[in-house]
Amino acid sequence: MSGPGCPTRCCSFPAVQKRLPVLRWLPRYSLAWLQLDVIAGATVGLTVVPQALAYAEVAGLPVQYGLYSSFMGCFVYCLLGTAKDVTLGPTAIMSLLVSSYAFHDPVYAVLLTFLSGCVQLAMGLLRLGFLLDFISCPVIKGFTSAASITISFNQVKNILGLQGVPRQFFLQVYETLRRIGETRAGDAVLGLSCLLALTGLGAMKSGLGRAAGAEPLCTRVSYCIVWTSATARNALVVLCAGLLAYSFQVMGCQPFTLTGRIPRGLPAFRVPLFSKVTHNGTVPFSRMVQVGAARSPAQGESRATPRARESLEKGQPRNDYRIEPNQELLAMGLTNLLGSFVSSYPVTGSFGRTAVNAQTGVCTPAGGLITGGHRAGALVLLSLAFLTSFFYYIPKAALAAVIICAVTPMFDAAIFRTLWRVKRLDLVPLCVTFLLCFWEVQYGIVAGVLVSGLLLLYAIARPPMKVSTQGELVVQPGSSLHFPAAEYLRDTVSPTPGSVVLDCRHVSSVDYTAVLGLAELLHELRKQGLALTLCGLQVPSRPGSCCWHRHRRLLWRPNCTRATQHLESGLPPGPAATCCIS
Amino acid sequence: MSGPGCPTRCCSFPAVQKRLPVLRWLPRYSLAWLQLDVIAGATVGLTVVPQALAYAEVAGLPVQYGLYSSFMGCFVYCLLGTAKDVTLGPTAIMSLLVSSYAFHDPVYAVLLTFLSGCVQLAMGLLRLGFLLDFISCPVIKGFTSAASITISFNQVKNILGLQGVPRQFFLQVYETLRRIGETRAGDAVLGLSCLLALTGLGAMKSGLGRAAGAEPLCTRVSYCIVWTSATARNALVVLCAGLLAYSFQVMGCQPFTLTGRIPRGLPAFRVPLFSKVTHNGTVPFSRMVQVGAARSPAQGESRATPRARESLEKGQPRNDYRIEPNQELLAMGLTNLLGSFVSSYPVTGSFGRTAVNAQTGVCTPAGGLITGGHRAGALVLLSLAFLTSFFYYIPKAALAAVIICAVTPMFDAAIFRTLWRVKRLDLVPLCVTFLLCFWEVQYGIVAGVLVSGLLLLYAIARPPMKVSTQGELVVQPGSSLHFPAAEYLRDTVSPTPGSVVLDCRHVSSVDYTAVLGLAELLHELRKQGLALTLCGLQVPSRPGSCCWHRHRRLLWRPNCTRATQHLESGLPPGPAATCCIS
Repeated sequence: MSGPGCPTRCCSFPAVQKRLPVLRWLPRYSLAWLQLDVIAGATVGLTVVPQALAYAEVAGLPVQYGLYSSFMGCFVYCLLGTAKDVTLGPTAIMSLLVSSYAFHDPVYAVLLTFLSGCVQLAMGLLRLGFLLDFISCPVIKGFTSAASITISFNQVKNILGLQGVPRQFFLQVYETLRRIGETRAGDAVLGLSCLLALTGLGAMKSGLGRAAGAEPLCTRVSYCIVWTSATARNALVVLCAGLLAYSFQVMGCQPFTLTGRIPRGLPAFRVPLFSKVTHNGTVPFSRMVQVGAARSPAQGESRATPRARESLEKGQPRNDYRIEPNQELLAMGLTNLLGSFVSSYPVTGSFGRTAVNAQTGVCTPAGGLITGGHRAGALVLLSLAFLTSFFYYIPKAALAAVIICAVTPMFDAAIFRTLWRVKRLDLVPLCVTFLLCFWEVQYGIVAGVLVSGLLLLYAIARPPMKVSTQGELVVQPGSSLHFPAAEYLRDTVSPTPGSVVLDCRHVSSVDYTAVLGLAELLHELRKQGLALTLCGLQVPSRPGSCCWHRHRRLLWRPNCTRATQHLESGLPPGPAATCCIS
Repeated sequence: MSGPGCPTRCCSFPAVQKRLPVLRWLPRYSLAWLQLDVIAGATVGLTVVPQALAYAEVAGLPVQYGLYSSFMGCFVYCLLGTAKDVTLGPTAIMSLLVSSYAFHDPVYAVLLTFLSGCVQLAMGLLRLGFLLDFISCPVIKGFTSAASITISFNQVKNILGLQGVPRQFFLQVYETLRRIGETRAGDAVLGLSCLLALTGLGAMKSGLGRAAGAEPLCTRVSYCIVWTSATARNALVVLCAGLLAYSFQVMGCQPFTLTGRIPRGLPAFRVPLFSKVTHNGTVPFSRMVQVGAARSPAQGESRATPRARESLEKGQPRNDYRIEPNQELLAMGLTNLLGSFVSSYPVTGSFGRTAVNAQTGVCTPAGGLITGGHRAGALVLLSLAFLTSFFYYIPKAALAAVIICAVTPMFDAAIFRTLWRVKRLDLVPLCVTFLLCFWEVQYGIVAGVLVSGLLLLYAIARPPMKVSTQGELVVQPGSSLHFPAAEYLRDTVSPTPGSVVLDCRHVSSVDYTAVLGLAELLHELRKQGLALTLCGLQVPSRPGSCCWHRHRRLLWRPNCTRATQHLESGLPPGPAATCCIS
């Protein structure tokens, strides 16, 4: 593995391969792979188009923006991506985040894309991907579970055919319940039917095994039909609903709320607008930049996708590749940066489609190429060019059903019970994130990350101390001694009835403040005529760790040659290496 | 030791003693102690009065506010304080902090006292004193060293007799150097003479031993005179300079910049003003509250006082008491709260006077009683009542010399070398704090605390891993596994040529994210037909730690009875306890 600190090798072939993962699989690409890729790409495409329309609705943007956002990610990810079954595109959670910043104004959303692309690219280039490590699983779970509820409920208004419901969750619940009498029968019936159909097809899909090659042709054909309709269920349901709406339109009555007119053709390739003078004044730039921060968690989500899916499906993970976070940031950053030129709103690794991709057995990121190149050429561009007049007839209730079915699996009720069994303290960040996300998603994430960070710091400040009295007081810190624990160690030891043995077997590093604390403890004990004995000392396991014997105040007594020898020779001292300090 | 969680004992005598430490020493108070206390109190008083005047100048307030701030702390600390040689009063560093918030307007300073009193009291009552643990020694050192330079340079303008120099450090340096030609000869000569005198007397003091009782009377008397003049050197120098200025005034010429008129008498006891409409509008309340945060570090300083002094004097600490941070917060909070009613500006544990107190051998916090009760009655009140007309004649250059001599020892150049030898990583927060404090003190502290916190988190995210290949890959994490380290562990292990042994001897807790990471690692290895073995497992050393065998995905295989027995019986497993997970 080539670490970040090898300047001589940064232009070697492995390094270039690392930056352009396409070079890893392209030379090995075969016809069999192509076949699989085409199937996967087409399947994903049929899932993506209706979802793209629906997610744009979640983001509060005109539906065509969902399509504008869908193709750039695939081109870029195909070249730069590391995960073979992740596709970049609009996602439910990103749409929710975007909705709070760019509600109803695409110009803001596009500028947001540009800026978050810059932030991600900078993070990737500066190798700040490790920051994503600080988003813990409970935070991601709390966030996705809350988002699942928020997004689902957000769509209830569309199923009921209500207009002008506010965006904030609690107000939305209140307004929806208050105005439930205004429900439009057509929308409600259609929405519920679509929900039923999607759930049924989804259940059929998961019940379906793989078709064996040995079976008779008619079985294989019917299997194929069922499999296709179950996999492309989103497209199927939306298509049926649209045809129904069109029939009603032809008959002169329209019981459904429709998507409405969509401009035809591809978006123009142009630089995003950096200032737009609206009747409310110009867009506050600072607010846009804020989003860069809120985006990272969504990244975390995309990184956690395999992990989340795994625990979701209670099965085994299907992938054994490494997602390299810095490389992912580069790919996403570039996608967003370029996407902002084609009026895309911010995209991220897709949760739902990732699962589809994996199920159809994509071998390389060219699954992205198909959903990008082929589907973008064949499906997205096709739909933008020819289907916009059809999109007019798509009932909003059908799109709402698509979204609800897409986000419901993200809610994970079992996590509460799991954490209660495994690690109760982790329930704190989970609950904080979960509850605050209903107020405002980004506050929930930030609060969750802060809370889990504080719990980490608390663990450092109050390390587990095993205290036992065997003639002497034996204190064994459970982890390294850092400055927040310095006073705690002293408080644990004193007042002491006798001499103190500090068992340092788990202490791998000590910082200056802790050394001073030990020196104070030593002086305190000496005043009472007691001794402080250190045992189980380790040699510094990495350079820069504190070498205790170097510190003038903690010089080793000459008679404890054994530990000193150990320390100075660099040999690891055994558990018997005991040392008194004067 | 009575922990925080013992509700039944909160009204017992030890608990009351803990809240009112006066009850600990008052019953044992003797005449011999009283004698020592009176000497110490009077000595401290003679140091305090000139310093109080000088510090008010640092805070940018009229000099009488220094005196107003000096007596409340002593009364309160005498009842509530835990450290016997700490006195509460205006300090150089707090004056510097106050100066940036309440420059030239006492009303702001008094309101600030009230608010920070409330914050401290709340922190003390909520037992948030442990937050002070997160201010590490390098941050305190960087902060005090920078403050020492800032405050010293701040006084150079007074020694040179320059007027209208800006407050910001860099502007101040620029302005002072630019206008060095405007130096007033009288001020410069007086200031430098005072500096010389103070330095000389200080050196004499540290060279002086204790008077032995067996020596002849005249030796003892002369010793006493030298000791008194060396100890009360601040008062002596200010007195001489004042008399000199008075003589010049009588002769009709005045070469010195004088302190000027001071209102006579004690401040009125009144509620602090909560709003003051100035020509610039009302005071921004948010800005005031901000200070509550900036105050904590100054608290940290007071807590670190014995520690800092110790490393300063390269000797042994003279005290063996515990400073209980929550109790200290209560004492300081009450002092500030009550102080705001007598126009005090925020006070904190005094660094310089603490040393004086310790040197004269104070036995109990009644040293505070003397400096509070007696000195406040005899010295501060006396000076406020009768000496204000004398204060008119105190040259500013003399006060500047007092300040410079008080803060110079706070600069600790040796810390850079010490940290280089002991723990190089600690140089980062030190340098960040040190450098940013020149820009604005509170930014420096906040940045230092953040940087040291981030270094802590980084230590958790990248724990030391001992990797050795002995047929199998043996990985031994140096500390507990928390969520930021989950991915790092996987990256360390894979790609692996063979089976993996995870030596958990130093792992005392594992959180849910890390458990998921291990599960993923296990699946990854199983796909390659490899095994993951855990050895050296510990029982959870505190409740709430992760019990691995509870987690459904990490069930112990029935054949590894030894580790399971160990885990389930609650016995600590020996280093040989090895366990395979399926």
